[in-house]
Amino acid sequence: MQTLKNSMMTRTNEVSKKVQSALEHEVKRLKALLKISDYLGSTLDLDELLYRIMEVTREQLNADRCTVFLIDQERQELWSKVAMGVNQEIRFPMKKGIAGHVARTGEILNIRDAYADPRFNPEVDKKTGYRTRNLLTMPMHNKQNEIIGVFQVLNKKQGSFTEGDVELLKAIASIAATAVENASLYDELNRSFVSFMETLSTTLDARDYITSGHSRRVTLYAVQVARLMRLSKREIELIRYAALLHDIGKLGIPEIVLFKNKKLSDEEYNIIKRHAVLSKSILAKIRFQRHLKEIPQIAAAHHEKIDGTGYPQGLKGDEIPLGGKILAVCDVFDALTSRRQYKDRMDILEVMDILEKETGKSFEPFVVYHFKNITLNVLIEILEFGHKEDFKAEDLNLLRNYTLKDLLRIRKQGAKSDEEFRVAEIFMYYYQRKYRGE
Amino acid sequence: MQTLKNSMMTRTNEVSKKVQSALEHEVKRLKALLKISDYLGSTLDLDELLYRIMEVTREQLNADRCTVFLIDQERQELWSKVAMGVNQEIRFPMKKGIAGHVARTGEILNIRDAYADPRFNPEVDKKTGYRTRNLLTMPMHNKQNEIIGVFQVLNKKQGSFTEGDVELLKAIASIAATAVENASLYDELNRSFVSFMETLSTTLDARDYITSGHSRRVTLYAVQVARLMRLSKREIELIRYAALLHDIGKLGIPEIVLFKNKKLSDEEYNIIKRHAVLSKSILAKIRFQRHLKEIPQIAAAHHEKIDGTGYPQGLKGDEIPLGGKILAVCDVFDALTSRRQYKDRMDILEVMDILEKETGKSFEPFVVYHFKNITLNVLIEILEFGHKEDFKAEDLNLLRNYTLKDLLRIRKQGAKSDEEFRVAEIFMYYYQRKYRGE
Repeated sequence: MQTLKNSMMTRTNEVSKKVQSALEHEVKRLKALLKISDYLGSTLDLDELLYRIMEVTREQLNADRCTVFLIDQERQELWSKVAMGVNQEIRFPMKKGIAGHVARTGEILNIRDAYADPRFNPEVDKKTGYRTRNLLTMPMHNKQNEIIGVFQVLNKKQGSFTEGDVELLKAIASIAATAVENASLYDELNRSFVSFMETLSTTLDARDYITSGHSRRVTLYAVQVARLMRLSKREIELIRYAALLHDIGKLGIPEIVLFKNKKLSDEEYNIIKRHAVLSKSILAKIRFQRHLKEIPQIAAAHHEKIDGTGYPQGLKGDEIPLGGKILAVCDVFDALTSRRQYKDRMDILEVMDILEKETGKSFEPFVVYHFKNITLNVLIEILEFGHKEDFKAEDLNLLRNYTLKDLLRIRKQGAKSDEEFRVAEIFMYYYQRKYRGE
Repeated sequence: MQTLKNSMMTRTNEVSKKVQSALEHEVKRLKALLKISDYLGSTLDLDELLYRIMEVTREQLNADRCTVFLIDQERQELWSKVAMGVNQEIRFPMKKGIAGHVARTGEILNIRDAYADPRFNPEVDKKTGYRTRNLLTMPMHNKQNEIIGVFQVLNKKQGSFTEGDVELLKAIASIAATAVENASLYDELNRSFVSFMETLSTTLDARDYITSGHSRRVTLYAVQVARLMRLSKREIELIRYAALLHDIGKLGIPEIVLFKNKKLSDEEYNIIKRHAVLSKSILAKIRFQRHLKEIPQIAAAHHEKIDGTGYPQGLKGDEIPLGGKILAVCDVFDALTSRRQYKDRMDILEVMDILEKETGKSFEPFVVYHFKNITLNVLIEILEFGHKEDFKAEDLNLLRNYTLKDLLRIRKQGAKSDEEFRVAEIFMYYYQRKYRGE
């Protein structure tokens, strides 16, 4: 009797211990999910968010790799940032592969032996040298229960993915979906704002054939220089918008003066010079976000010169904001290399001679230094912006390995190899070519 | 001996039961927090979010009321949406009251007897007739540990707020802070976009004194009509932006024609008419968010007439988007009521006669119906946009109770009371007044 009672009590104890341990496990799991929710919820930057989601999932599921694909409904594609590379993106049609299958059907696929499953496509492994053992692929639903993306988790560190892993990933996917929706909304709004600025600046420039495309090209040059200077994402954004809008003040200059074909009188020239100040006063009325507050100052400074002889303020050296110094170089480069009606472009050597002569007077030397480090494929794509379809991919690939500085050396001192000869030839072909109707 | 052993086992059981119940409680708490995190995280609309935070907090803390104040750093004020009213906002200096104290110091104040505490200000209770018994006030910190707002929870349903309540509110505040930061970032970006559109449309209109302020006023009228029609927030946003940008196509019309003072030739008039189509083609290049995709169509339709005699497409009746029908009425009303140099405004009776005659031909009758329901205080503030400082508050208060329709009746059939007489007199004073230098 006694023994029975004891053994019953022990059993009760064991049961309650099991319950307790299950509860402790649940507390741990919920705490982890709360932490994940906080971590994923605290960025609206889509790139950063995708990176965080992949990192967290890999860790929580004790897996070797994780990729999150988002659905691009318009193009019916899946796309993802590859965590390893910088700004690398992979894209493929939704019809393809296991991820595509899950994106279309909403099924959860837990494949314990990849190579034994006919749905698995070993091509990627072949290309990358990676060996996929097992993989868990799961859809991500938004609040309206639409599939917005796919999780793919590869190679559980020990064994294969369990039912517990599936449940955990479901919870993570639900948290991630909310964060992705928010970041996408922010991204969409930002893109619409940027496309607005781009459209406006294109429309303004297009009023006159001489300035057509000018602000867009200046922006592309300026962003390149800013990248080569290794400025931060936010600084590049600032310079980008200031470049797009630097000539917005021309809205306040009468067209009869602005588009005059003949030589301007001093008075007329003074009227035109007012556009820099007008850019500032127009842009100052816009309630830009905190990190973009300097846009009016930068835009207004695109005609300042470091020796203090520029306008509107005659600022000297570091009184000019960095963005203004970058704009000054890009603005003049674009003006000098523009096609004029009935006229070819000025030779690039002549353009750079003018730029070099002004370096240290008009232009900040380190800006010109970085400008000359723009690679030739990028340079020609900007020079010929709007004619992208006319480039041969092989030509761009060759130009990719040479900079403007290299080109100047080749042109001045002669080619050291057949490739260098080809490079100069190809660049000059695109630089000088004509279009029908021009 | 036996009894001792039994009693020990019972005690062990009791302890483990307590542990188990504590764990169960913790699981419940964490699940609730996860749910809150999901609920708060899934909106970027700041108004909606504040409402959700207050609702959730009130429920979770079993309290009668909850208000969340956000800090406006620029103005050093606390502000909040009052949950009861529509779009109502309260604001007060950060120096004032318990909420201000918490916002400045970061202290948590759990006041068990409001009227016994000298820091409590009974003024609000006196005004509202509410009786505050106890209140818990807590700061909300962002990830950089800056105070961004304050929670104030009033009247625990039973007893006063416990330590458990304080802990729970801390957890909610942390979740809420992330959501508030996201919604604020979205809000800031959206405001900067809107202020960009406003600045652009103001700048475009200001190129000529005749159109100065036109798009801004048309936008204000259109938003009023849309509100009176009880359109959704998103539809109002759509109409607002289309109104701001309806004349953007004028950028493509040479100024020499656009701003011609003398009578236009047929050819010149046809050139000017192109602005509607140009608005469409410019706006179509912008990647607006999904719910704003109709902006180009609406903007292009502001000269369409419901009998099909308008331009550019000659659309009839419901072929014209609702936003286009609203713009058409507001556009003409603004043109007719604009001050011209050396000329007073046209009498409002004459303006409305013209509008009425075109109702059913140019204009959709129910749009004109709603237009006439705009209250006179709003109407005169739009007509005199840019001269807000010159209004007497008491005048606006009186005008608030009468609509444009009332005014027309009073002017045509005579005033039925002294107040009606005053109303017409005040409105006409502002409508006809002149400014120095004009």
